Amino acid sequence: MDGFTFCAPTKVVFGRDTIPSVGGHIAEHGVSRVLLVFGGGSVRRNGVYDAVTASLQAAGVAWEEFWGVQPNPSLAQVEAGVDKARAYGAQGVLAVGGGSVIDCGKAIAAGCFLDDYWTYVETRKLLQKALPVFTVLTLSGTGTEMNEKAVITNEPEAKKWSVSGLCICPRVTIIDPQVQADVPWHLTMTGGIDAMTHVMENYFRGRLADAATGFFHEETTLQLNEGLLRGIVQSLNVLQRDPAHYGARASLAWAACWGLNGLTVAGLSGGDWTSHALEHALSGRYPHIPHGAGLAVLFPSWMEEVCDVAPAVFARFARTVWGVGQSGGEAAGVAGAMDADPQAMRALAREGVAATRRAFAAWGAPADLSHWGVTAEDVPEMVRNAFGYRALGRLVPLNEEQVTRIFMRVL
Amino acid sequence: MDGFTFCAPTKVVFGRDTIPSVGGHIAEHGVSRVLLVFGGGSVRRNGVYDAVTASLQAAGVAWEEFWGVQPNPSLAQVEAGVDKARAYGAQGVLAVGGGSVIDCGKAIAAGCFLDDYWTYVETRKLLQKALPVFTVLTLSGTGTEMNEKAVITNEPEAKKWSVSGLCICPRVTIIDPQVQADVPWHLTMTGGIDAMTHVMENYFRGRLADAATGFFHEETTLQLNEGLLRGIVQSLNVLQRDPAHYGARASLAWAACWGLNGLTVAGLSGGDWTSHALEHALSGRYPHIPHGAGLAVLFPSWMEEVCDVAPAVFARFARTVWGVGQSGGEAAGVAGAMDADPQAMRALAREGVAATRRAFAAWGAPADLSHWGVTAEDVPEMVRNAFGYRALGRLVPLNEEQVTRIFMRVL
Repeated sequence: MDGFTFCAPTKVVFGRDTIPSVGGHIAEHGVSRVLLVFGGGSVRRNGVYDAVTASLQAAGVAWEEFWGVQPNPSLAQVEAGVDKARAYGAQGVLAVGGGSVIDCGKAIAAGCFLDDYWTYVETRKLLQKALPVFTVLTLSGTGTEMNEKAVITNEPEAKKWSVSGLCICPRVTIIDPQVQADVPWHLTMTGGIDAMTHVMENYFRGRLADAATGFFHEETTLQLNEGLLRGIVQSLNVLQRDPAHYGARASLAWAACWGLNGLTVAGLSGGDWTSHALEHALSGRYPHIPHGAGLAVLFPSWMEEVCDVAPAVFARFARTVWGVGQSGGEAAGVAGAMDADPQAMRALAREGVAATRRAFAAWGAPADLSHWGVTAEDVPEMVRNAFGYRALGRLVPLNEEQVTRIFMRVL
Repeated sequence: MDGFTFCAPTKVVFGRDTIPSVGGHIAEHGVSRVLLVFGGGSVRRNGVYDAVTASLQAAGVAWEEFWGVQPNPSLAQVEAGVDKARAYGAQGVLAVGGGSVIDCGKAIAAGCFLDDYWTYVETRKLLQKALPVFTVLTLSGTGTEMNEKAVITNEPEAKKWSVSGLCICPRVTIIDPQVQADVPWHLTMTGGIDAMTHVMENYFRGRLADAATGFFHEETTLQLNEGLLRGIVQSLNVLQRDPAHYGARASLAWAACWGLNGLTVAGLSGGDWTSHALEHALSGRYPHIPHGAGLAVLFPSWMEEVCDVAPAVFARFARTVWGVGQSGGEAAGVAGAMDADPQAMRALAREGVAATRRAFAAWGAPADLSHWGVTAEDVPEMVRNAFGYRALGRLVPLNEEQVTRIFMRVL
């Protein structure tokens, strides 16, 4: 278990009818003027807009509204939001929406203290100062509601890059799973897959400590990650046939909240994150591709590319998340003794990849890039773009040929 | 999944050789004079005392030392610490030790702002103000290193009661699992059992949503709790034969850190906590009984008393934590379809209780109260004491007869 620092100070207020508390929480932080950031109009239809503004009014918090944040929020939107926040003299940002809206709100909160947002992104330095951020979450998946990251797309340069800093970690996040009851299935499902990939990007760096018992050096983190993955899988299975199931909405929302706040990477040396880099190259070029859907295509292809390098953890995943090759009598969730035969272990690892693909397909996730009209001609540029951000492959370093193969396998 | 608020703002710095960073973290918080709180002398022998004081010196943080905090720290010790902190003009408290030392440090930090510590405890109100608390953990189990609680024993009144408030939540906690490498097995084991009971006190309030799929209303929380329990069980199994195993020390320490900071109770309506109330009545009367050892005796007896009331979650526990009745082919950790036959489910639930007892016994935990010379004559007073704190039994309300039986069963 490698060393790490964990800090996720967000206060999460979770449950039915929690949105009316938002104004009080903001006022408690001494904030009396907020920029209110929204996406499209769905919050007007489902009552969230009315609940939020009534709560702000009751708490004596004034606001200015900034509408229209798109999926894969753009630098241009961040700059427009910063202008609006400055002109209004906002003391805080309240983002009401899904991951894109919250990321845009975080970037605006930081941008108010920067001369040029993108120049700072390019420095890769931690953000030091931001307006306090508050959120009301309406779509679970990204985990941005409880972390210190924001991903923004510079469309002219086709770069989808993140910045981070504790200063943009939301002070308070409100999650009422009820408001997600009528989220369409494809958004629920891609949100769930996005959250799964946050866990899995870290998970596969787990290292077997003892083949006889199946104990891994990062046992507790792997156990927690498997728990989150199974929680998401089972919640999605319930929601696919019963979209308004409160327990499943709540379990999915709570699991997604923990996917990317530090818990799932504890001891795992930063995880791998190749698939996310490739997806950013993909949706940086094609901003209409939903992040979770792009990952549903790319993640299994990455797994197939690398699983032979770390068969023990991939075999464990096959057993504990999908039940492949699980024999009776051992404690559920315990990987159990690892097969001494490396070939059998590699075979089990590959069965886990196949089981992942089968689950994604059963949920109706896209399985290839041609779904969005991507062709082989696009691949070299996406490979260049992905390597432009950083070296790829921490579990195992990847070269251009391998990354090209990850894309080409799922064209 | 019931509503809840989660907030655990402690920054945890985890890993090998992290203790030398403590001075820098304290200085970052603008604190330049601390009361340094210790238990016995073990930190002098294992190098922790030297590392801590060298770090403080390097960071320009001055200190005064307060030694001798005992297991089940007493009100008298808190009062002595408050006097010392006030006389010194401490701006913060650095507790270096296990749960007792940290609880005492937290109580001192709050006590500096109270006229009379115990009078405040009796009000059951949240603490509002305390000196900032920092910790270096040397024995895992209680979870106090990442939460807002402190348990202190008023020996003259035989009351072991807790107070809480975000103000005593440690600002920074340093966990170097290496320093636990030579903790004796009985302390490692009772620490691990203590952490398990924190998870289990909450876990058994899970409610089955769908017998056909085995989905529970609080699925994600139950999954995380099962992951923590298995992480602890497997770490203890490794440490029993290999006490210096770093991965197992680290996995145990990290799991214990999460047992009582809000994660394990999310959506579970506050958990039950009867066993803890009974253990507090026990060790309030017999302060030499280690908390985790008392729980190892009492918790299975509580399980036996109540498992028929909620057989679904007890049956799930039997399957997912101990592998009892687990058939092959289903995803590990998935409870699977619940047996429609209530009698079969109750039988499985009881097998889970037996498996818990077997594991505790295999680790060498005490199995009955006579181990400490407790007799039937002590029981009525302990029952009175337990009910004096609050009504008992949230999973199912318990009367005096039932609570008496929980004690008598394990005399």
